[in-house]
Amino acid sequence: MAVSFTVTQKDKHSHARLGLLKTGHGIVRTPVFMPVGTQATVKTMTPEEVQELGGEIILSNTYHLYLRPGHKLIQEAGGLHHFMNWPGPILTDSGGFQVFSLGPLRKITEEGVVFRSHIDGSEHFFTPEKSIEVQACLGSDIAMAFDECTPYPSSREYTAEAMERTTRWAQRCLAGSLGEGQGLFGIVQGGMFADLRTRSARALAQFDFSGYAIGGLSVGEPKDLMYEMLDHTVPLLPSDKPRYLMGVGSPDCLVEGVMRGVDMFDCVLPTRIARHGSVFTRRGRLVVRNAAYARDFSPLDADCDCYACRHYTRAYIRHLINTGEVLGIRLTTIHNIHFILNLMREIRQAIQDGRMVEYRNDFFKTYQDA
Amino acid sequence: MAVSFTVTQKDKHSHARLGLLKTGHGIVRTPVFMPVGTQATVKTMTPEEVQELGGEIILSNTYHLYLRPGHKLIQEAGGLHHFMNWPGPILTDSGGFQVFSLGPLRKITEEGVVFRSHIDGSEHFFTPEKSIEVQACLGSDIAMAFDECTPYPSSREYTAEAMERTTRWAQRCLAGSLGEGQGLFGIVQGGMFADLRTRSARALAQFDFSGYAIGGLSVGEPKDLMYEMLDHTVPLLPSDKPRYLMGVGSPDCLVEGVMRGVDMFDCVLPTRIARHGSVFTRRGRLVVRNAAYARDFSPLDADCDCYACRHYTRAYIRHLINTGEVLGIRLTTIHNIHFILNLMREIRQAIQDGRMVEYRNDFFKTYQDA
Repeated sequence: MAVSFTVTQKDKHSHARLGLLKTGHGIVRTPVFMPVGTQATVKTMTPEEVQELGGEIILSNTYHLYLRPGHKLIQEAGGLHHFMNWPGPILTDSGGFQVFSLGPLRKITEEGVVFRSHIDGSEHFFTPEKSIEVQACLGSDIAMAFDECTPYPSSREYTAEAMERTTRWAQRCLAGSLGEGQGLFGIVQGGMFADLRTRSARALAQFDFSGYAIGGLSVGEPKDLMYEMLDHTVPLLPSDKPRYLMGVGSPDCLVEGVMRGVDMFDCVLPTRIARHGSVFTRRGRLVVRNAAYARDFSPLDADCDCYACRHYTRAYIRHLINTGEVLGIRLTTIHNIHFILNLMREIRQAIQDGRMVEYRNDFFKTYQDA
Repeated sequence: MAVSFTVTQKDKHSHARLGLLKTGHGIVRTPVFMPVGTQATVKTMTPEEVQELGGEIILSNTYHLYLRPGHKLIQEAGGLHHFMNWPGPILTDSGGFQVFSLGPLRKITEEGVVFRSHIDGSEHFFTPEKSIEVQACLGSDIAMAFDECTPYPSSREYTAEAMERTTRWAQRCLAGSLGEGQGLFGIVQGGMFADLRTRSARALAQFDFSGYAIGGLSVGEPKDLMYEMLDHTVPLLPSDKPRYLMGVGSPDCLVEGVMRGVDMFDCVLPTRIARHGSVFTRRGRLVVRNAAYARDFSPLDADCDCYACRHYTRAYIRHLINTGEVLGIRLTTIHNIHFILNLMREIRQAIQDGRMVEYRNDFFKTYQDA
């Protein structure tokens, strides 16, 4: 297996841990946040910019790349790394989440899912085997099993059905033909039902996945409920494999997720709110496009040393966003990705220094989520 | 006068010349192309990126900045250089061109122009004095006189009237209160009428402007007519002052303009066509967003060594533009600005080596304009 994981340090007062995730395109220090490059680009950024901010691994979306430009085209280009000029590790999702959430019409059978493209309405059929085939063409370092993510709230009956199907699909994904160096992660489902999470985790833990993701959280439920599910689920996962909490990236959830033993995170939040003119600060989110900042000649965040904060004022960035200038969302994106990756660096340092609990407590003294 | 100009070399076989334009924010080598930062940003680029490509001076738009974020706000920010983090020289236009071309309703009197904002329809009044006041607040290195640019075609009568008014307004601009280090350029008008160009140039040459612009060209007339007007007008301008051909930036026109003795150019063309998925090459324009390039894994321009051409394929850039990803237009913009600034470097070298005519002839062996 080309993807391997080593836990290098465990925190004594929480479930937090340090690790090294080894892939054919480099080693990733965990806990890690993966910036999202949905369409083979981390929105607004060059690969060099992502790396300069400390990005070590990115996520890209199978569903989007399958539709545009097409996985065969990317294969012809020499795979996703070559296509987008990203030299580091890439994790691809399975397409499951988008197939189930973006498609206007979808029909689920045991075999797979018929869905319509959100772009042109064309009909497509995805199966576990197809997802693996597409991810093999993309050539990511880590592929994800094709799963069904249940929305919140969902009935116990439907959640159980989707979870059991996800487990059967995971086995079909394992039997699929990934490329030489590609690892495969299984995905635990089970919604907000602890016993279903138990069944899912135990079933998947029987197979030798390269890692285990927790899916179906951060789908609209209260944060306390998400933390409760994490408290319940993480201990059920193999402790020698990386644990990946999918779709989570708000600063408070990253801190709480690490405390509960999560090693990997991804989320569109930092890039998405940047495009809407919002930035993270140690006190919470700041909506810099608001009129209140028109004549504010201070940086986005006085505590930050990113490129945007070193050289530009809130007034200027607000002007850029207000007039639709691309540089505006480039600067807010740089700031937000820096903020999150810097948070992860601090978290890793805190674990290394044996003061993760203290770090968490300090963090919440100032941070208020939007 | 804080802005000065020295001709350092004259070509023996054409009117081309090398010069140094000195400003309070640095020295500019001419002939020069000025990238346009309409709204206090060269679209999609950081100032460092503009500089890395060899940009020495940029142009920004008085009309746009007056409306958003407002010249007083920029003055509060410490001037345009501080506001946008551009350390080099800046030339601001007078707002005249936009007032006359963008405003849906405008009323011209001897005193000035009443116009409506293209953003919210609000009514504004611009006079030569007001234009100078706004440019003083912006703190540009070179301010432009407030002029009336006649469209093509225009009657001789209207063109003469507008030209005479422009001359009177130029004197009022000279009497205005620019900042300490700011230079002021006069603008020759007169449309496509050689004798009106003569009258305009002779009238303005009587005053001690820091430089002389040729306005009202590249407004829709055939290129031969533009070259004819340049042939006629340039010799009428003081030879010890910089000559600036406004709004011209297609590669062929830059070469022909330099041949006729022009020292400075600006144009939105490189950034605008970049946003629409077109790039310059030595053979002419290439519309990379076209389906023909979907599987083309060669660079935008095989002869180019810009960042975009060193790292990315036409297929990838087309995918980015096709999916609305900002990185796509960042890459085409980098390529186009590099192409134009590199062309100007080659032109300066050719003049220095005494082979500008040869360079022009070689250039047109391959180049075909869109």
